[in-house]
Amino acid sequence: MRPSGQRSSQTGSPITSRTVHGREKGVSELHFEHESLPQRVCFASGEARAMLARVVARLKGSRVMVIASARDADRATQITADLPVVHRHTEVAMHVPVQTAKRARAAAGEHDVDVLVCLGGGSAIGLAKAIALTTGIPIVAVPTTYAGSEATTVWGLTEDGHKTTGVDPRVLPWAVIYDAELTMSLPVPMSVASGLNAVAHCMDSMWGPRADPIDRAVAQEGIRALSIGLPQIVADPGGLGGREQVLYGAYLAGVAFSSAGSGLHHKICHVLGGTYNLPHAQTHAVVLPYVLAFNTPAAPEAANRIATALGSTDALDGLQELRQRLGAPKALRDYGFDASNIDAAGAAILSVVPNNNPRPVTTGDLHRLLYGAWQGTDPTTITYDTESRR
Amino acid sequence: MRPSGQRSSQTGSPITSRTVHGREKGVSELHFEHESLPQRVCFASGEARAMLARVVARLKGSRVMVIASARDADRATQITADLPVVHRHTEVAMHVPVQTAKRARAAAGEHDVDVLVCLGGGSAIGLAKAIALTTGIPIVAVPTTYAGSEATTVWGLTEDGHKTTGVDPRVLPWAVIYDAELTMSLPVPMSVASGLNAVAHCMDSMWGPRADPIDRAVAQEGIRALSIGLPQIVADPGGLGGREQVLYGAYLAGVAFSSAGSGLHHKICHVLGGTYNLPHAQTHAVVLPYVLAFNTPAAPEAANRIATALGSTDALDGLQELRQRLGAPKALRDYGFDASNIDAAGAAILSVVPNNNPRPVTTGDLHRLLYGAWQGTDPTTITYDTESRR
Repeated sequence: MRPSGQRSSQTGSPITSRTVHGREKGVSELHFEHESLPQRVCFASGEARAMLARVVARLKGSRVMVIASARDADRATQITADLPVVHRHTEVAMHVPVQTAKRARAAAGEHDVDVLVCLGGGSAIGLAKAIALTTGIPIVAVPTTYAGSEATTVWGLTEDGHKTTGVDPRVLPWAVIYDAELTMSLPVPMSVASGLNAVAHCMDSMWGPRADPIDRAVAQEGIRALSIGLPQIVADPGGLGGREQVLYGAYLAGVAFSSAGSGLHHKICHVLGGTYNLPHAQTHAVVLPYVLAFNTPAAPEAANRIATALGSTDALDGLQELRQRLGAPKALRDYGFDASNIDAAGAAILSVVPNNNPRPVTTGDLHRLLYGAWQGTDPTTITYDTESRR
Repeated sequence: MRPSGQRSSQTGSPITSRTVHGREKGVSELHFEHESLPQRVCFASGEARAMLARVVARLKGSRVMVIASARDADRATQITADLPVVHRHTEVAMHVPVQTAKRARAAAGEHDVDVLVCLGGGSAIGLAKAIALTTGIPIVAVPTTYAGSEATTVWGLTEDGHKTTGVDPRVLPWAVIYDAELTMSLPVPMSVASGLNAVAHCMDSMWGPRADPIDRAVAQEGIRALSIGLPQIVADPGGLGGREQVLYGAYLAGVAFSSAGSGLHHKICHVLGGTYNLPHAQTHAVVLPYVLAFNTPAAPEAANRIATALGSTDALDGLQELRQRLGAPKALRDYGFDASNIDAAGAAILSVVPNNNPRPVTTGDLHRLLYGAWQGTDPTTITYDTESRR
């Protein structure tokens, strides 16, 4: 079956069009709203320094604040050597503590900064976003991981262990410079974990609460690039090609996920990570095939797109083959999750499952899915409550 | 072969990355810049009126100018019934004559307009763009054809038979509302011709002067939707599904083409249409398979994407099958093109061929391509100067 671009194939409830001009026009199969965000992205390995100079000049930036952790300070200095830097900020912390954000905002004000340049992963980009949120100063991001935060309008701040997130167009980086040479120092296991997280972003974008055909097409291209690049990184860690493909796929994953919103997979992983403190990347890698096996029978368009992107005839087969090539983890019990928590976790997940998930989710379904993921069972052998079968 | 996402596969000249931190990092395969434009698109058949009210309210519009030709005036009145309309402008003309634009701008000023709503094809959208260009008033477009102008920052004005075009972010519609019921009155032959033009936009976006992997992925999704929708329109002209798919594909065609720029196909058709006055749509339909047969042997990624989008194992086979199902025209000699003009046309085309075309283009190549298109020869039987063969 060819993909149909139909929302109806996912929701199971085609939208009947209204009668206009006095006649019935048949059934509508395409019904969605989509917002494209304004951003310039630049893929140029080894050229971050030259690209930064061009982009900051285009922004007419004359007072640049550079945000990069102390660990990244040296290479940040190198790639920003041609910029009119007035302040280098190295106080970067995970989840952007409110106090860290306050000090960074004060520094930006004190130095009369007009462009923020950040180098690093989600923490550095998150801090730049915290400054942009209250000041509107444009951001130029140079990502070194595959988190994809640079492609979104989502910001986050943490206070007393509690994380607040929000959406604001001002925090979207004005430009993103992807220089794969800056990711060469990311160790292979971290590259794989972070890359599989990006794959999960793409797959969940197929059925997230606001998922539309454009999100699915972008996610499909992302999966294609990630599935080409990740095995290349494993086979040749010093090669540039795989790192470039994974950066490209991670960018698309960010674009698609931020538009489609968090689907069943991320709801599950959020509960497992947040409540049971399971490691982020490994949890994603283990859970993903179970969600795919659960959802795809009820989401033929998504299944087709994922299979096509993976160069496979079947979405789950393609994912399992990719996971095998990457040596991905297989069972939650290997990462400190206790089977006695399955029911409580299932209850917590059930309350946050998007109500447009392609397949209805029951308490029993979540128990079987989590038990399977705990044990590392072959996902195709699990039988769920509703009718759809592979 | 799987698509590689590599620019090098298209240009034949991989970009060698620079040595950074004193070591050679291998060969870069991904090198491009891409700008995403800010726009809200809404697909909602039969809901244009409700969607317009929502979008204009979001823009806080209180003085709306409606632009639609006299022929479209009635339905424009219907769908704008809930808006605070202060002026209805029906003087709409092809190619936006400068005097027409001046009068429309004067009307917008006189009525202190704060939102432009245009309904129609390229002419109505073009006039709204002409106003936005000098005033910055935001546009909400309701397209009724498959031209795709609503997705671009390109404007055009005509004076004394001479057309001036330009690019300005201010002319990009703030929002686009696609209501397929408004396209039901477009006759099948015009739908097919306009839809094949959109297919040509997508295919040329694979190798246009600024084509990048994102453009190619968007174009691939566009071809997929168009190749599903166009045969549906032919088979069931009163059905809504095909019209929706073609509107969706035409939007993606506009997005991809405006980013990638005009490639070999559009350069050829522009000369044939401009100098020899051949009919626009038929020229595109005839020439496209010849350009595809010429370029794809040197552009494996594009060939793969086009084939995948068409649900075929081969790009050209897929296109020819689609053309056959649509009863597309086959030879330029049926549309008033004289074989004696082939050499002069070839010379004019040669001077404008993008220099990054995947395959080098010679005078002899253009002669053979145009002669084939004039005669309606099977494109696979033509032998060109350079080595690449199917």
